Amino acid sequence: MALYDPTLEALKDDLLRLHAAAAQDQAPSLADTPGHDSVVERMGEIRSPDIGEILEALIEEDSALEAAVDTLALLENDRAANVLGYLPSGSQLTIVGALADTQLLKLLEEMGSDERADLFNLLDEDRRETLLRRMAHKEREELKRLASYEEGYAGAIMTSDYVAIDSGMTVSQALMRVRQTAPDAETVYQLYVLAKSGELIGTMSLRMLMVSRPGAVVDDIMIRDVIHTRVDELQEEVARIVARYDLIALPVTDSDGRMVGIVTHDDAMDVAEFEATEDIHKGMSIGQLEDGVRRVPLWTLYRKRVMWLVLLVFANLFSGAGIAYFEDIIAAKVALVFFLPLLIGSGGNAGAQAATLMVRGMATGDVGVKDWGKMLGRELLVAGSLGLTMALAVAPIGVMRGGTAVATVVATSMITIVLFGSLLGMCLPFVLERFKLDPATASAPLVTTLIDASGVVIYFSIATAVLSSVSL
Amino acid sequence: MALYDPTLEALKDDLLRLHAAAAQDQAPSLADTPGHDSVVERMGEIRSPDIGEILEALIEEDSALEAAVDTLALLENDRAANVLGYLPSGSQLTIVGALADTQLLKLLEEMGSDERADLFNLLDEDRRETLLRRMAHKEREELKRLASYEEGYAGAIMTSDYVAIDSGMTVSQALMRVRQTAPDAETVYQLYVLAKSGELIGTMSLRMLMVSRPGAVVDDIMIRDVIHTRVDELQEEVARIVARYDLIALPVTDSDGRMVGIVTHDDAMDVAEFEATEDIHKGMSIGQLEDGVRRVPLWTLYRKRVMWLVLLVFANLFSGAGIAYFEDIIAAKVALVFFLPLLIGSGGNAGAQAATLMVRGMATGDVGVKDWGKMLGRELLVAGSLGLTMALAVAPIGVMRGGTAVATVVATSMITIVLFGSLLGMCLPFVLERFKLDPATASAPLVTTLIDASGVVIYFSIATAVLSSVSL
Repeated sequence: MALYDPTLEALKDDLLRLHAAAAQDQAPSLADTPGHDSVVERMGEIRSPDIGEILEALIEEDSALEAAVDTLALLENDRAANVLGYLPSGSQLTIVGALADTQLLKLLEEMGSDERADLFNLLDEDRRETLLRRMAHKEREELKRLASYEEGYAGAIMTSDYVAIDSGMTVSQALMRVRQTAPDAETVYQLYVLAKSGELIGTMSLRMLMVSRPGAVVDDIMIRDVIHTRVDELQEEVARIVARYDLIALPVTDSDGRMVGIVTHDDAMDVAEFEATEDIHKGMSIGQLEDGVRRVPLWTLYRKRVMWLVLLVFANLFSGAGIAYFEDIIAAKVALVFFLPLLIGSGGNAGAQAATLMVRGMATGDVGVKDWGKMLGRELLVAGSLGLTMALAVAPIGVMRGGTAVATVVATSMITIVLFGSLLGMCLPFVLERFKLDPATASAPLVTTLIDASGVVIYFSIATAVLSSVSL
Repeated sequence: MALYDPTLEALKDDLLRLHAAAAQDQAPSLADTPGHDSVVERMGEIRSPDIGEILEALIEEDSALEAAVDTLALLENDRAANVLGYLPSGSQLTIVGALADTQLLKLLEEMGSDERADLFNLLDEDRRETLLRRMAHKEREELKRLASYEEGYAGAIMTSDYVAIDSGMTVSQALMRVRQTAPDAETVYQLYVLAKSGELIGTMSLRMLMVSRPGAVVDDIMIRDVIHTRVDELQEEVARIVARYDLIALPVTDSDGRMVGIVTHDDAMDVAEFEATEDIHKGMSIGQLEDGVRRVPLWTLYRKRVMWLVLLVFANLFSGAGIAYFEDIIAAKVALVFFLPLLIGSGGNAGAQAATLMVRGMATGDVGVKDWGKMLGRELLVAGSLGLTMALAVAPIGVMRGGTAVATVVATSMITIVLFGSLLGMCLPFVLERFKLDPATASAPLVTTLIDASGVVIYFSIATAVLSSVSL
């Protein structure tokens, strides 16, 4: 990986140099190595995600993992924990693999509760046990609780570092609570009012709190109808709620209405990006990748791509079967094969467009199952016009290659295949959704394969009908 | 459009009924119509984006636009302005077309400055002039300034409603400023310190302000190295910065470093969703749609789809030309056509996967131009394995349909086409990026079309070579 920013690139090189010097001189510590102070100062001037990027670049270079670990050691513990939280899980695992338990414990302590749980879940059973044994009781229980939520759901992306206000507090008491909690909370800008039972009974923004009379009771001014979600809600739905209501944080409750955490706006944005990537990959029949394409293991990449590719090889046999059925007319008029890839390709393209428009519309909530009728009507008109345009484009070539009869066959096939393909592509996501399957399964490869097979049949049927009525 | 939530659906029906009753009874005002109070109360209990959804449903129903306008009239001005801001631009335009200038002015006054400018830009010249003439000088200049920024850039998504702190203020003075600005600012949680010239010289969070000593001077505790962007930065880059640094808001400066606005986290999230949709559509050669697929005019949808479809019809002629060139071997061995859609389809699928992985990797910043060599090596291994797997799947069918010779041709072609197609798909985005073109132009339709043509040549070349050495 090459760093985008030259400042970061230069700093990375100096970190490598520092590491090499320390190793060569066998200096008792990094701090005694020449150049140490200047590097530390420059690291103080850049931000955690940028240091994270340098670490990643170091990890990817051969045998520079030690330098990455050294870099982390140059930072204060809370900064190092912060940087670690910005790394993708694969890089986190590589780095913590090179850290001693004591070091790792110190970092875990400083991490946000959600990131701590995520990192913890990456470790193997043995190491998890070792670490848990060395933690204080309260910390251990908290970590075990957060780490127990299943990936992909609200519980796995929430943090327990939020500001809770007790029911009955006054505004000035609540402000005091905010000041006390400020160093540790992920956000202090939205406060949650809890009953003694832990039940979430209200919320208020810090903005509202600041403009309220200090003696007022929070219960009288809070919003009682709190937008919230449950620990077992899908993470994409969580991101959708945060986006829809422009929230800074979304509170999460358990099945008894007790508050267990919040999902902050920045984590919701990360989820939205992750989900968009997943949708884009699904659109090409690629399975879910846990990490970026640059880092994911080759074997994983193979597995995530091969399944549908092989399935579609077999689906494509229907095209072959269609061709076998029409072998006589093909043998009699080999020129027809000229237009075969063009016709089925065009139908596939139009159909993949139609499917993609529906799948994305459904993902963003713009299109619902009940819109099916309306969408069908619209697609009929649009696809009809598209088919007509493409038929006009291909007709002259038909005339040139085989005269009017062939042109008629090709143009009629084009309209029919484009219209049929588009309607198939448009309807498939609705059918999948209707049967509680993921509409995104209507990927471009699946849709084009289905249209290939149908296109073969449509084309050669029309050819048989038209050409048998004229001289072959 | 059918509303997802039954509560909203019921409220919509009651709003329609209220509107009909008012029209029938010729009541002097909606407020005197029976049922008015209950509907208003229920609207008070739901949130602005949800009322927006009801309005959209009303707009889509035939002749219910009047009911939508009535609904807006039932709300307080600031609430109505808020609701209007949540509507997609098409619906906004429909509604404001039915509003009198006086009504519209009142709503504009209450809207956030960014949403006001967006709405203003939708209006025709005449109406804009009329409205501007009726505004106060300061308001008018502010609106003209914000409305002048080009769509798609930071200037068009920023708001000027932020909290500015004067350099030299104490913490308690700054807190006072926050309280004063609280009702109008989009966010009060990040404060921006400006020099007399308007230059952005520092920032601090409200959290930091609240835990600081009241007498301290802001200049001494603020962060001087402010993450910021320029008015002419692309909006997707703005969203990327907000996501990368987990910001609540990103300050925007003009070319002289003077602060002109902020982009808030919720607007950045909307941009990210819009951009993801655009990328997904581009992946299928669909042009940029300004509105959801359900609402966009049919003619627009046709235009955004037809261009590449027709271009690709002509590109597909290369496949035809390939077939024409090999017509003799096809005529001699028509059974070969059986495997044609299967082979070029499989290559297309694998190639589209490879292209999509790169395009998305580039969009999220995971893959850069400099990673080309590494990505090529990885793709070589993965695509080689995929090709081998697919060849093994297809070989038995080759034996069944035409014996060992045909199986050899088909299996060899499969490996070659999948490998070639994948490498082509993988490299194309890099080539486009290298020549400063949009890598997303390497769409599935384009990639599959290119692979179709190459696949034809590869398949029949291999067939000619193998089959001419054995008896045909």
